[in-house]
Amino acid sequence: MAVGSGKLAEIFPVAGFRLGTTSADIKTPGRNDLVLMELAAGSAVAAVFTGNAFCAAPVQVAKNHLAAAGQADECIRYLITNTGNANAGTGASGLHDALTVCKSVAGFSGVEPFQVLPFSTGVIGEPLLVDKITEAIPSAFEALDNNTWLEAAEGILTTDTRPKAVSRQLKLGGKLITISGISKGAGMIKPNMATMLAYIATDACVEQTQLQDVLGRAVEKSFNRITVDGDTSTNDSLVLVATGASEAFIMAQADIELFEEALESVCVALAQAIIKDGEGATKFIEVIVSGGIDYKECMDVAYAVAESPLVKTALFASDPNWGRVLAVVGRAGVPNLAVDDVKIWFDDVLIAEQGGRALSYTEVQGQRVMDQEEFAIKIDLARGDCTETIWTTDLSYDYIRINAEYRT
Amino acid sequence: MAVGSGKLAEIFPVAGFRLGTTSADIKTPGRNDLVLMELAAGSAVAAVFTGNAFCAAPVQVAKNHLAAAGQADECIRYLITNTGNANAGTGASGLHDALTVCKSVAGFSGVEPFQVLPFSTGVIGEPLLVDKITEAIPSAFEALDNNTWLEAAEGILTTDTRPKAVSRQLKLGGKLITISGISKGAGMIKPNMATMLAYIATDACVEQTQLQDVLGRAVEKSFNRITVDGDTSTNDSLVLVATGASEAFIMAQADIELFEEALESVCVALAQAIIKDGEGATKFIEVIVSGGIDYKECMDVAYAVAESPLVKTALFASDPNWGRVLAVVGRAGVPNLAVDDVKIWFDDVLIAEQGGRALSYTEVQGQRVMDQEEFAIKIDLARGDCTETIWTTDLSYDYIRINAEYRT
Repeated sequence: MAVGSGKLAEIFPVAGFRLGTTSADIKTPGRNDLVLMELAAGSAVAAVFTGNAFCAAPVQVAKNHLAAAGQADECIRYLITNTGNANAGTGASGLHDALTVCKSVAGFSGVEPFQVLPFSTGVIGEPLLVDKITEAIPSAFEALDNNTWLEAAEGILTTDTRPKAVSRQLKLGGKLITISGISKGAGMIKPNMATMLAYIATDACVEQTQLQDVLGRAVEKSFNRITVDGDTSTNDSLVLVATGASEAFIMAQADIELFEEALESVCVALAQAIIKDGEGATKFIEVIVSGGIDYKECMDVAYAVAESPLVKTALFASDPNWGRVLAVVGRAGVPNLAVDDVKIWFDDVLIAEQGGRALSYTEVQGQRVMDQEEFAIKIDLARGDCTETIWTTDLSYDYIRINAEYRT
Repeated sequence: MAVGSGKLAEIFPVAGFRLGTTSADIKTPGRNDLVLMELAAGSAVAAVFTGNAFCAAPVQVAKNHLAAAGQADECIRYLITNTGNANAGTGASGLHDALTVCKSVAGFSGVEPFQVLPFSTGVIGEPLLVDKITEAIPSAFEALDNNTWLEAAEGILTTDTRPKAVSRQLKLGGKLITISGISKGAGMIKPNMATMLAYIATDACVEQTQLQDVLGRAVEKSFNRITVDGDTSTNDSLVLVATGASEAFIMAQADIELFEEALESVCVALAQAIIKDGEGATKFIEVIVSGGIDYKECMDVAYAVAESPLVKTALFASDPNWGRVLAVVGRAGVPNLAVDDVKIWFDDVLIAEQGGRALSYTEVQGQRVMDQEEFAIKIDLARGDCTETIWTTDLSYDYIRINAEYRT
């Protein structure tokens, strides 16, 4: 299941960035499960990774390689991604395996191994089938092309039901620049730094420190505001590449702001695409908490609501069981909450006020909102000026089926 | 579904404590849904209530009445419980309704309204059908008896599939004392102060302050260590009554310790009975986190594992997908966790060490543990001396069915 049509708009190629997708037969024979991305020399790279202490071997290797490339003043030239196996919970041999994949890419292309960043997604705790991957690398190189974003978007999927890709173009300093990106992820989704896997490339020319700053802010407003099941993956990685091939130099504050706005819109669209394709999803829900004293209490309430199994099953049932939302707000840990001041809406229908059901509320109104595939749960804490928004989905039989049968 | 046979052992009557169960036709016509409990004059009462800010009207009234009784130096004489409606999220009219029920019990028996504590459980946000309850109160009085614990245990149930009752006897100061208790709860279970509803009575004679202290410690080791879905109810209430009818005075430190030990064992059994009957439960899982620096980090890891939808669906599938446990430990927020030192067992089978699968581990071993209805997930953080244990269950299709269909 998934929410909305998921129909993709046109993905514009990014000068200086090529993608090659092939099959390494890792989990499902014949499935495209290996994606190589090639960055033009001189590209700047920014990245954010999972906050999970058990971060996967490829995440550790990618961090090391980014540091080594920075020290050597060389740039990252390849990203190599496999699905079907996360190479996580694999200890020392997992690190060795991830490095072997990088060396294979480096050997084939004549770059240094530290100029290659590895990414893996799939089942945790199984050894990576390195030989299958290294054997398939030549065909990934053969497939490299500027206009193959869609194949790559499909090649990185796991339990996803559809590819996720977004593209924006804007004029900066008289030059047209493009930002294109793809993402994957459907379960184990509560990113902490980044979602499972996302790759974004632009032909703008942005200095590396600036690029990392802009990415950090965009991620905070997008990938760090989604949850399917509250489980932060071991492999979350997001990479932003700026090839500079457009020769549009983003340095003036006004240009940076325009670029950041466009990047944030790409990140939000990719993050929301993950939620709409969340495991078993039949609803796409925006949770908006206003009137909080600070960011923390708004986010605490928003995530408590978004991750409550009771709220999520009511959403699945299209049941306007607002009492469950009220109960979750009450346990979300907001100190000295004046419960009589709290108001709750489903879209624009006021549901609860003064500690109980709103006088104006009718079940028919609530049902009308609930029957929609997409709507908002709005909560006003009425004690401050902070407002925060996150996105989530429901909890359905299909979530159980997908995750009870994942390894079989 | 539920775990284990749920067969009840003998429930010993408690002198000075009578229970009367009847039907008020609140939700399901003819179902026994109203339970009255009568305490002998001079009984001491200790209670703990939900930590949810949106605590239900009966919880607020019960707290007020306990305070008023203490000030007037009078004792609580009646507990009145309805199921089918939680009288939560009902604002000012809910408070009025709860008080009306107390007044009706008081009027019938000639005590003050503040000597009556009200309790409700069921759907949140619907007005309480007060008239149905007050009309049924006379028949609840008629049913009062010393030996009707089982009927009461059945009368307080909601989505539970079976009654929960435990009884212990011990000799103190040459006198036999009895502790008997009942509980209910299957969903919206992560008690914070107490579980949804539990009533325990003893004929021991314990001073009120002492009784509250002992209860607080016993609850911390039992009801505050269970979770079905991480959702803390608005109505959680636990009441412990000491009638003193045995004339066994519990004052010496050694007696207090023996009494506390027996009370804790009653509380643990009642709390575990709730988990075994958790909504859709097919497994009963003990999560033991050892080697923590302090209580907080052990409990953070234990609850993160116990509430992870991915771990819970793997448990439902009897799938030894230990990678999900490892991933949850990594995101549980333990600062500077040395992941290579962490060890994970299913019962006595070592699953993970040094950041990956244990060399000695085989899938057959893991499957053998997983195929059991009850087992332990043990996690050693290897950084301190603290060990904490909690209990939980799996996440099944039936949890979704029960909670998607609850109001229909």
